[in-house]
Amino acid sequence: MTLTGSMLIGQHAVSGNREAIRAINPATHTPLEPAYHGGSGEHVEQACALAWAAFDTYRETSLEARATFLESIADHIEALGDALIERAVAETGLPPLRIQGERGRTCGQLRTFARTVRAGEWLDVRVDTAQPARQPLPRADLRQRHVPLGPVAVFGASNFPLAFSVAGGDTASALAAGCPVIVKAHGAHPGTSELVGRAVAQAVNACGLPPGVFSLLYGSGREVGIALVTDARIKAVGFTGSRSGGLALTQAAQARPEPIPVYAEMSSINPVLLFPAALQARAPALAQGFVTSLTQGAGQFCTNTGLVIATAGDALDRFVSAASAQLQECAAQTMLTPGIFNAYATGVAALAEHAQIAAQGLAATGPNQGQAHLFITQADAFLANEQLQVEVFGAASLLVVCADDEQVRQVCEHLEGQLTATLHLDEADLASAKALLPLLERKAGRLLVNGWPTGVEVCDAMVHGGPFPATSDARSTSVGTAGILRFLRPVCYQDFPDSLLPRALQQANPLQLRRLLDGQREV
Amino acid sequence: MTLTGSMLIGQHAVSGNREAIRAINPATHTPLEPAYHGGSGEHVEQACALAWAAFDTYRETSLEARATFLESIADHIEALGDALIERAVAETGLPPLRIQGERGRTCGQLRTFARTVRAGEWLDVRVDTAQPARQPLPRADLRQRHVPLGPVAVFGASNFPLAFSVAGGDTASALAAGCPVIVKAHGAHPGTSELVGRAVAQAVNACGLPPGVFSLLYGSGREVGIALVTDARIKAVGFTGSRSGGLALTQAAQARPEPIPVYAEMSSINPVLLFPAALQARAPALAQGFVTSLTQGAGQFCTNTGLVIATAGDALDRFVSAASAQLQECAAQTMLTPGIFNAYATGVAALAEHAQIAAQGLAATGPNQGQAHLFITQADAFLANEQLQVEVFGAASLLVVCADDEQVRQVCEHLEGQLTATLHLDEADLASAKALLPLLERKAGRLLVNGWPTGVEVCDAMVHGGPFPATSDARSTSVGTAGILRFLRPVCYQDFPDSLLPRALQQANPLQLRRLLDGQREV
Repeated sequence: MTLTGSMLIGQHAVSGNREAIRAINPATHTPLEPAYHGGSGEHVEQACALAWAAFDTYRETSLEARATFLESIADHIEALGDALIERAVAETGLPPLRIQGERGRTCGQLRTFARTVRAGEWLDVRVDTAQPARQPLPRADLRQRHVPLGPVAVFGASNFPLAFSVAGGDTASALAAGCPVIVKAHGAHPGTSELVGRAVAQAVNACGLPPGVFSLLYGSGREVGIALVTDARIKAVGFTGSRSGGLALTQAAQARPEPIPVYAEMSSINPVLLFPAALQARAPALAQGFVTSLTQGAGQFCTNTGLVIATAGDALDRFVSAASAQLQECAAQTMLTPGIFNAYATGVAALAEHAQIAAQGLAATGPNQGQAHLFITQADAFLANEQLQVEVFGAASLLVVCADDEQVRQVCEHLEGQLTATLHLDEADLASAKALLPLLERKAGRLLVNGWPTGVEVCDAMVHGGPFPATSDARSTSVGTAGILRFLRPVCYQDFPDSLLPRALQQANPLQLRRLLDGQREV
Repeated sequence: MTLTGSMLIGQHAVSGNREAIRAINPATHTPLEPAYHGGSGEHVEQACALAWAAFDTYRETSLEARATFLESIADHIEALGDALIERAVAETGLPPLRIQGERGRTCGQLRTFARTVRAGEWLDVRVDTAQPARQPLPRADLRQRHVPLGPVAVFGASNFPLAFSVAGGDTASALAAGCPVIVKAHGAHPGTSELVGRAVAQAVNACGLPPGVFSLLYGSGREVGIALVTDARIKAVGFTGSRSGGLALTQAAQARPEPIPVYAEMSSINPVLLFPAALQARAPALAQGFVTSLTQGAGQFCTNTGLVIATAGDALDRFVSAASAQLQECAAQTMLTPGIFNAYATGVAALAEHAQIAAQGLAATGPNQGQAHLFITQADAFLANEQLQVEVFGAASLLVVCADDEQVRQVCEHLEGQLTATLHLDEADLASAKALLPLLERKAGRLLVNGWPTGVEVCDAMVHGGPFPATSDARSTSVGTAGILRFLRPVCYQDFPDSLLPRALQQANPLQLRRLLDGQREV
């Protein structure tokens, strides 16, 4: 499949007329063809008009038709074969095995949402039947279902060119909810985006859906993004990226005549607490697990371990020694883009001004290679300096050394909202851990015991979210099947004749949904 | 029970130190004793500190304990007896029967939330069990439940001194979710608020809960309200009132270092569509139903019929004649406060500049009496003038006369977001109605057939919400059991030993919840 450098407005390949974006192979620091010219406000207008025209049809597709569409997207992505892997590797510097795994995850995610769509629980059907004889007033017949919000703008992420990008979690969940999607591709992997975008457009066509169900735009500046978020026909936004980027979109969305929800996943340093007994029992194993997790994928994960919290003592010293020894052997790794590499270098330099360097990985041997770093600071210093909890995207972590349990608590209370918080503990730590849990539940969307936060399972129970600034909306998750709930709103139908009701609410329950019927859950 | 004019900070009666608020009996235009001195930032600080201190304990109360607490509030409100009815009547000008009905609704609402708490579906428990042998990577054990957001600020509404006020829907649903509540009482009914507030505080005490679970503040200006919404310990806001008030709170909440959700129910004119065959068959009955609904409670309902949309013709003329004849017989009614009465008079005068007066009710015979009004305009004029869809709170309605079905659609498309949209139709209108439904679903939270939108049932299926500016968050409802979902967020627990898990997530399922277990719903 030849890359064309075109956007997709529905089924039409359209060339942009703004500055050209070229992917850069970060491993060689060479630009990749073709050029992707950015779109203008006019292209946003066209894509929004098409999405709006598609909305009323698409949102009333049957559960089966919508699920089949999601599966068809997965099939079409798989049919891209090695061309997709090769392009994604070239554009990201990530190894082929990682990209293959991510393709599996992306297609599995689409098929998981197909299952969720078919099960129909997201419709949250509630029926309160009429009580004409009730005193003092009769009760009307009241039925509720959820409907999609409307067309959704999705911003692709740099660090997951497949799983959080054109056909990633935001797109899959919005399409599952019945929302047309307009993706603004991330400029770091435009070719990967074109390939996947064409696979989605082919699935739209193969399933006989209105063309506006999916469009794909490019743009190097703010023009396309802000035009999308402020278009009256866009009703929600999905974003994974930097805090400044997420806040800019959130503010633009709030300033609209009709504000809309923005689901921005922005910033997290993912504290890991090492409890005394665990540290005493297995400092070397913890050190090994920590360094492996920290350096995986050059540390370019939202859930990377940016902060370790532990109490001073011999056991912690052994942890630091072992972790430092291992870290010093770690090769520098190619980062996703020159921009991300530069930001990492800047972030590491800023940390070095305020904390001590415990260990560094091997020096870079090629362009855009990030060198792993472990910093150490004392709890007092951490508590006094907000700069020390700014996320440094990449394989850098800060160990905060506390005097005692109380200081551990103070450090935890001082943290901003997080995607995850991790506890490494043994039997003897259970009471201390239990005492901290209410605090940690307030701080993070996912709590882990004796694991590492990288690796986010796509399943029903996952929460990839958390209090601000981890995300802009702690009530939601951007990974897992509950992600569909972000793009829905309830509508109640009062005294509707059966023939006017949507099928989900008809008395005979033709979709076989587990309704909440007169206060009782149907089996 | 003697009124003291005090605020409640937890269990303590505290006197404010700001300007005094005195309720005014709108029927006699005389002030009522005692004076309620407004609180200051210091009182907000005390109430927030207490709420924060109570949060971790209150949110982990058992389902049974929390349900019992809600029922205890209802019992204590009922125990206030006639003193509550008399004071509420004096402060609002509403008839005793209406207040009695509202008390029943308020206590019923608390007991309904008790049932919802016990059923535990709001916990949304999802369990994905470990798959240690899965290839290429094992799956961790992942479990999700919902936890409360934190202390909630509730702003009482003027028009429901019980059901949307101190122990109204926002308070009941926030408490049900496990959130401490700080109410800012509406200045129109401070005595009613004190009585109900003391009933809530008694229930807190009787149930052995931390005192910070509930506080009640007064304040005449913006000081208390803005201090509450911007306090870092407040994590969500419930509000029912004006668009300007709701937007001010929303903006203050968004400007915080940590933005928080505001659920503001603000503004709706609740379009009622009269379809041709229904109008032809029963214009007089429709006119009677319309005027009865319009003038009920002096039209002081969020769901009052502010807009009627129909196609020109003989049948519509008959509707207008019958409605006008009935309206002209309607006595003017005492409105809730002098401020609301004045705003109504101003709103009616503004409408009169742009639309024709079809009929007016009888003139006022006492202070603060609103005179019912029916206005008429043509669709072209309506489409050209945004001023014509500004809510006039009270018994005023505007009939928009359309040339044909297409113009009906244009008028509907032109509408802002609404709480409700109503269709009066006969068999022959079904096709036209069906064609409009997708549009109306985009515009409103509740759709009715052959009814009137006033009267909002507290049940599982109710949606009292809708797209902006009807509310600040179309994804929510402020009436009905789904209101609890506004105050919750999901948390995921990964690989937790059973002893560290909250009871809702333990393997043995001690709360007997219907979990989503490995993708299957338990019976």
